[in-house]
Amino acid sequence: MQEPLALRAMGSFHVGGKLVEISGRQVKEVVFTPGGTPAKFDPNGTYQTGQMYVQYFLPQKERGKVPLLLWHGGGMTGVNFETTPDGREGWLEFFLRKGWSVYNSDAVERGRSSWAMYPDVIPGEPLFLTTANPFERFRIGEPAGGFNPDPAKRKYLPGSQFPAEGYDNFVKQIVPRWTSTDQMIIDAYIAEVDKVCPCVIAFHSQAGQFGFKVAQARPDKVKALVAVEPAGIGDQAKADVLKDIPVLMLFGDYIEQDSRWPTIRKTATDFGDRIKAAGGSVDVVNLPSVGIKGNSHMMMMDKNNLEVAQLIDDWLARKGLAK
Amino acid sequence: MQEPLALRAMGSFHVGGKLVEISGRQVKEVVFTPGGTPAKFDPNGTYQTGQMYVQYFLPQKERGKVPLLLWHGGGMTGVNFETTPDGREGWLEFFLRKGWSVYNSDAVERGRSSWAMYPDVIPGEPLFLTTANPFERFRIGEPAGGFNPDPAKRKYLPGSQFPAEGYDNFVKQIVPRWTSTDQMIIDAYIAEVDKVCPCVIAFHSQAGQFGFKVAQARPDKVKALVAVEPAGIGDQAKADVLKDIPVLMLFGDYIEQDSRWPTIRKTATDFGDRIKAAGGSVDVVNLPSVGIKGNSHMMMMDKNNLEVAQLIDDWLARKGLAK
Repeated sequence: MQEPLALRAMGSFHVGGKLVEISGRQVKEVVFTPGGTPAKFDPNGTYQTGQMYVQYFLPQKERGKVPLLLWHGGGMTGVNFETTPDGREGWLEFFLRKGWSVYNSDAVERGRSSWAMYPDVIPGEPLFLTTANPFERFRIGEPAGGFNPDPAKRKYLPGSQFPAEGYDNFVKQIVPRWTSTDQMIIDAYIAEVDKVCPCVIAFHSQAGQFGFKVAQARPDKVKALVAVEPAGIGDQAKADVLKDIPVLMLFGDYIEQDSRWPTIRKTATDFGDRIKAAGGSVDVVNLPSVGIKGNSHMMMMDKNNLEVAQLIDDWLARKGLAK
Repeated sequence: MQEPLALRAMGSFHVGGKLVEISGRQVKEVVFTPGGTPAKFDPNGTYQTGQMYVQYFLPQKERGKVPLLLWHGGGMTGVNFETTPDGREGWLEFFLRKGWSVYNSDAVERGRSSWAMYPDVIPGEPLFLTTANPFERFRIGEPAGGFNPDPAKRKYLPGSQFPAEGYDNFVKQIVPRWTSTDQMIIDAYIAEVDKVCPCVIAFHSQAGQFGFKVAQARPDKVKALVAVEPAGIGDQAKADVLKDIPVLMLFGDYIEQDSRWPTIRKTATDFGDRIKAAGGSVDVVNLPSVGIKGNSHMMMMDKNNLEVAQLIDDWLARKGLAK
């Protein structure tokens, strides 16, 4: 049984976005609820688009010198950082208990950030992930045919720390995503940074490019970057803009044997090398090399998720960001 | 400055839903991140659909004898009950501070519950609300032409308690919705009740039918129902099933002058009369009649939102549900 969690404040808000006009559509009559009263429904008009939802929890005893922003990856929402799919403490609560003010958000077009008409506002079509897709793509199970609808027949990577009993819950966190919304997402993250920071940003996977690019746009506001298996990078020509921001890059296990992850990691570490060449500080930690083994791409929900979080907390403290 | 909020626990989970097979689609190659490594993307397979996201906060000092479930209305998410759009305390924090364990959710197909392919899985098309729509339909401003893109030119109903400075933030909470998903939503709410209850359920607007129907499906699990401007009702032939569950119905201001709300309210109170005829207990409170004036349909975010919440808390205590 843990100590009670004492919060100075909690709440939520939306940031960013813009208004878009839709015209020339037919007025409809819609019954919103079966047996309800029909209402005129005019689809023409002004729509709010591109906004982002942010939920925050501020600890009574603050230890972090600045807030910690958590940015999830593609096809996901901030739920990634909450309770793990098998019901354990997630990174959000861990960092909160360590004294960090935590801001957890849903990227634009996902979760409580809402999504806009497509292709009118969001170009292209959304992608939906099958239940099998993350099992193979996120280094949870065998990359070809490891997934089976029957949980007992799934082939996990040997020594995997992913909580097998939570996989079917994990896929309930998946949300549709587009591949055309990067700029909308970056704009909203910048709006969050302008509202909340100075801060530390921990970002995962697809948010690799968002974390680095937003820090390049607001270098004075970002005191450290924690890139958790970044699947994208910042503007290479402006790597020097990040030279005063300490960067930690984390990678899990099973990368060498994967068809895609060696390239993804090399792209990220090459970008790190550019930051270092410009005088910056980049620490790359391949978790197996420091004795933390079996991590999937979803290390914030792996069975050893708090061991990884502790490594991040220690690094932030070493960088002088904890009181 | 308020007291710190002491939580015994907080977290989230998903409940309900089912797996759906999609077949016969073409395999694509997708670059998920600009400059990233192309990945094979096979849309055929099994999809998780119909799940629901629930976030919970459990107070250290519990006063409610059972948890309180908050169910939002159409085109919305659980964000409705968090910080108000003008930055004040919402109902979630109010009830938590009053000692209730609070479970706040996003209905199926909205927010962090995700949404599924349509029309394959969800029949029909989603509806998107313009920024003007709730202004007129939710009794915030003048029903015809009260909205103006320029906040200074908006015509609010006289004496409106809706926080005018928060309207443009409020519309950022809007999410697309379908009108074909009622049964999916009910199934997921039943899954929540089966996991969390016995409980009290406070439900708003579209969730009128969900609150009453789910209570009819699980009458032994529901200890009280708080129907906040319900825009739908339960199965009329089974009104007697609710006879042992105390019901509070709340309605705000400006109803008589509206084109739709007198009918919506009469449908609800007629259903209440059926419950009473079967021996049940139904309290209908038209807020203006008890001196609480100016409330819109979104009374959980009106300027007097905590006065309305206090009325609910008092009623629950009178029904013996608080320690």
